[in-house]
Amino acid sequence: MATTKSGQPFDRTVCESLLRRRLFYTPSFEIYGGVSGLYDYGPPGCALQANVVDLWRKHFVLEEDMLEVDTSMLTPHEVLKTSGHVDKFADWMCKDPKTGEIFRADHLVEEVLESRLKGDKEARGQKVVVDEEKDAKRKKKVKETKVVKLDNAVVAEYEEVLAQIDNYDGPELGALIVKYDIKNPATNGELLPPVAFNLMFQTAIGPSSNLPGYLRPETAQGQFLNFQKLLEFNQQSMPFASACIGKSFRNEISPRSGLLRVREFLMAEIEHFVDPEGGKKHPRFHEVQDLELAFLNREVQLSGSTATTKMGIGKAVATGLVDNETLGYFLARIYLFLKKIGIDESKIRLRQHMQNEMAHYATDCWDVELFTSYGWIECVGCADRSAYDLSVHKNKTGAPLVVRQTRAEPLRIEEWQVDIDKKKFGPRFKKDSKTVETAIEALTQDVREKLSLDLEKNGKIEIAVDGVGDGKVEIGKDLVQIEKRTRVENVREYTPNVIEPSFGIGRILYCLMEHAYWSRPDDEARGPLIQRLTLKLRRLGVSNRVDDSSASIGKRYSRNDELGTPFGITADFQSVKDNTFTLRDRDTTKQVRASEDEICNAVKSLAEGEETWEDVLKRLPEFTGQEVE
Amino acid sequence: MATTKSGQPFDRTVCESLLRRRLFYTPSFEIYGGVSGLYDYGPPGCALQANVVDLWRKHFVLEEDMLEVDTSMLTPHEVLKTSGHVDKFADWMCKDPKTGEIFRADHLVEEVLESRLKGDKEARGQKVVVDEEKDAKRKKKVKETKVVKLDNAVVAEYEEVLAQIDNYDGPELGALIVKYDIKNPATNGELLPPVAFNLMFQTAIGPSSNLPGYLRPETAQGQFLNFQKLLEFNQQSMPFASACIGKSFRNEISPRSGLLRVREFLMAEIEHFVDPEGGKKHPRFHEVQDLELAFLNREVQLSGSTATTKMGIGKAVATGLVDNETLGYFLARIYLFLKKIGIDESKIRLRQHMQNEMAHYATDCWDVELFTSYGWIECVGCADRSAYDLSVHKNKTGAPLVVRQTRAEPLRIEEWQVDIDKKKFGPRFKKDSKTVETAIEALTQDVREKLSLDLEKNGKIEIAVDGVGDGKVEIGKDLVQIEKRTRVENVREYTPNVIEPSFGIGRILYCLMEHAYWSRPDDEARGPLIQRLTLKLRRLGVSNRVDDSSASIGKRYSRNDELGTPFGITADFQSVKDNTFTLRDRDTTKQVRASEDEICNAVKSLAEGEETWEDVLKRLPEFTGQEVE
Repeated sequence: MATTKSGQPFDRTVCESLLRRRLFYTPSFEIYGGVSGLYDYGPPGCALQANVVDLWRKHFVLEEDMLEVDTSMLTPHEVLKTSGHVDKFADWMCKDPKTGEIFRADHLVEEVLESRLKGDKEARGQKVVVDEEKDAKRKKKVKETKVVKLDNAVVAEYEEVLAQIDNYDGPELGALIVKYDIKNPATNGELLPPVAFNLMFQTAIGPSSNLPGYLRPETAQGQFLNFQKLLEFNQQSMPFASACIGKSFRNEISPRSGLLRVREFLMAEIEHFVDPEGGKKHPRFHEVQDLELAFLNREVQLSGSTATTKMGIGKAVATGLVDNETLGYFLARIYLFLKKIGIDESKIRLRQHMQNEMAHYATDCWDVELFTSYGWIECVGCADRSAYDLSVHKNKTGAPLVVRQTRAEPLRIEEWQVDIDKKKFGPRFKKDSKTVETAIEALTQDVREKLSLDLEKNGKIEIAVDGVGDGKVEIGKDLVQIEKRTRVENVREYTPNVIEPSFGIGRILYCLMEHAYWSRPDDEARGPLIQRLTLKLRRLGVSNRVDDSSASIGKRYSRNDELGTPFGITADFQSVKDNTFTLRDRDTTKQVRASEDEICNAVKSLAEGEETWEDVLKRLPEFTGQEVE
Repeated sequence: MATTKSGQPFDRTVCESLLRRRLFYTPSFEIYGGVSGLYDYGPPGCALQANVVDLWRKHFVLEEDMLEVDTSMLTPHEVLKTSGHVDKFADWMCKDPKTGEIFRADHLVEEVLESRLKGDKEARGQKVVVDEEKDAKRKKKVKETKVVKLDNAVVAEYEEVLAQIDNYDGPELGALIVKYDIKNPATNGELLPPVAFNLMFQTAIGPSSNLPGYLRPETAQGQFLNFQKLLEFNQQSMPFASACIGKSFRNEISPRSGLLRVREFLMAEIEHFVDPEGGKKHPRFHEVQDLELAFLNREVQLSGSTATTKMGIGKAVATGLVDNETLGYFLARIYLFLKKIGIDESKIRLRQHMQNEMAHYATDCWDVELFTSYGWIECVGCADRSAYDLSVHKNKTGAPLVVRQTRAEPLRIEEWQVDIDKKKFGPRFKKDSKTVETAIEALTQDVREKLSLDLEKNGKIEIAVDGVGDGKVEIGKDLVQIEKRTRVENVREYTPNVIEPSFGIGRILYCLMEHAYWSRPDDEARGPLIQRLTLKLRRLGVSNRVDDSSASIGKRYSRNDELGTPFGITADFQSVKDNTFTLRDRDTTKQVRASEDEICNAVKSLAEGEETWEDVLKRLPEFTGQEVE
């Protein structure tokens, strides 16, 4: 069960209502009725986001010397066709032809079967353990749970289906809907078979509508397309990483779950390019190898369990649980980042993707999941995308998205080489010369070896050439020579593999707010020169806000506690007399009293982390006087 | 003519080639042939952008206590229909039906007439003064200038048309195209009449395609829609400003001019909400009133001149050139921001919008323009949008986008009030009762006064009610009473006006790069413990990059000079012996030599602006020894 920072049961309704009231976030276009899956961040949410992004930049881009880029969101069709998104980036949806309602097929099957299993448990008098997230989702659609006992065999079958609900394609989901007689839960209406719905927002670039495009579904492609330029910028040195922070877009079928499933979201993605040879070692792996992480591996999940294993990342790589050092290094760095920004470390786990859950090209893939009142939420993905993306773009465009490396030791290759007497070749084959030559060049080493024997034996060879004569061509030894020679290769050319840590910043922010949330049970009442003070703080670079509302001091403290304001300065009647102020710490509610300069400097050093509240409490006199009001 | 920072003639080809080579920016999707109007920022451009955005936040959001928000880019149709963008945010385009080419109508007329005027001047043997921006644009389309002398009257007519080219609507542009026989310059093909092309990118939100939407063309609307929540967040206190930094999108017809006309761009917009009564004073105006700015006012432009007038902003407001203090305050603050980030202040001017150039609701509008090799470029707009946006959204949705303020003195209003005897009204008018009542409530004070006399005189009144009987209704004095009474209003309700400073960050970055650019004519050759040094700098929070390429030290300095790297540390053979390093200043190329710690601390204090290079040169020994290589 989700708990608050202080260990109390977490009440999502209360927390979300606070977050909206204090404008951490708010539904976009609310006065127009809102659009599901779109949210605006208000001032405190915006500031929190800016701080998390700033820490991300320092933790990754600066610390790891990454090449940050800012690439276009509008993306032409051809790029996303090549990357596979046009064909595969889709969910399956079912339509109710009578009401026009649209359901995401896998979610519908899941929710209906779970509802039936719940009804069965109730009918059997068993205790129903509620998964809060799923229960909330289900209640919105499947209004009532019918208390009906099911056959044991049916229960087992339902459970098996639910265990692998992520693995079904559209036709399979359609078959399940027919087999289990699943209908529109609200009206009991028949549904049409599932059809694929591409999740990218489509648009047309330019006035002639002949350049279809999409809003990018990830920032990764923009980084891959710039690989060659980035490699050159990095002075041809490998490995290196690029990074991009920016919005991406997914046209979710029917987004719910607040900030966790949205149609427009801030991502921070890293593409770390590495030589596929040599085991993908990482030079700084030793710095993190002793860090213990909670792993939920593939086999455990297959067995139906969600038990995690604590293990050092060094051991995880050594035992092969995590495929390689680079992947392991980033998993550790991701964990350290989350901890740094204030995520509760007991609520972090690393879940390995199932084989069928991974893209077909991926070598290994892990989700870093955070526990919230919605259950475990994927907030960061860390995948080894192999050479897939660079290869497909290279093949499509011909751009050399490769690394060329001078070999320390030249590579000597023994091979069969074919020499053609070009002077005689032209007159002999005329317009077919080029075609025949190309066919010869394409011959494999094995074939060449065999042909060299033919040439020696018969004085001629016969090869297949499509479209020339009857498809076979005879060539005499006056025209060709085949010999085994040694070729020396000084340069190695390879397509780098990509390790991709990919962060959903909005999801992380939501989890952070849940993890940081707590409330004081007995928050009672405790108790202006303001302009000069706020100017002075601003000049010191300390962001501050005046609360001169007519609310009681207690209410004002409480409002700012909810906003997360760490320190409050109060000006009272005494301030007018001797220019001293009180400074209050949010977490302990303790206060000190000192001169204007001392208070301002203390706030600055607290904000910049040079002093802790304990330090300040030691050097400035504590204030325990009467509260105003 | 555009000049470099050091006053030399500016060569755009050389500078742009440098900016692309060093990956400040690069065309997006270049390996797929690129998409015009879309660019990616590489590492140096991305870092420059981040620094400018950071300074913007400090200069405006922090310094002015603004409420920053981060709102959705995807925007439903209805919002932009209400704001006027669906109907009016369009350019006029002409199509060549044979080739399929599309021209922006105003640009085409402009370019063809300018080309003819140029040909006329050449025929008359006059010196042709070239506007570089327009000339480059024209050359792309109008391949050759025909040297043909025109009648004096025609020259005058062309010049008049060009002077007001921004004022023609589509049909007028179509008439000009017919009148002056303007055709496709490349093929001489006939063009179709201009049609409106909406500049917003359209898409569909959600799976059922029944929610059409657009990518926002500005961040402003998202701020207006949140007005009510922001006012509450600000504890109902006025005036206040919101701010938003984020991408916006415009589907330009055929963007050229590099970074200056793009389809996806970063904006930073401020919406300052102010009481329309009381002259829109600003409490901090006195801080800026003596600042001298270069104004290009409306009248001067109408006279065909571009001569600017230097004037204190205080005087500009006092004389009514700038409409009010708040607008003036922001013009000054914009100027100070541009100066702070490194814009050449001699290349800044404030151009007032012509009456017909402003949106019909605007009270006054100024463009802050920067001079570049493309001419004067609008980089910041500063408009008084009056109460337009809040009013239209309030009228459409009914949301109270207003300020309610307790009056210091209650307002006493004498007015004619109509009382209806509801008991008798129902039986008398039956189903029409409500309609008649509404018609009575809508009566103006003047009409009420007149009717009160009728009632006294005739014992009845007659009023027009659409759709009831013959459109006229008689009401006797048994049903209504009309009396003059005094009403006391304790609360004032008003719709705030909006002053909007709106920054095109990409344009500012481009201008900044042009203004900062210079090159050294004789940049000659001058001359590892690196890992420890780079780690130490990183720990100090100083972003740094190792250049360990095989290039000569001179080349490496030169590469980094082009990237704008301000300081370079060199490790040489001496460093290995005594752990001292040289530190080189980009601008003077002078160097000092000191211990590792001293060098690192000097770099940190230089980067954070605590010391200047002159300070460092005074306290650390200058290095004038032999250069390596």
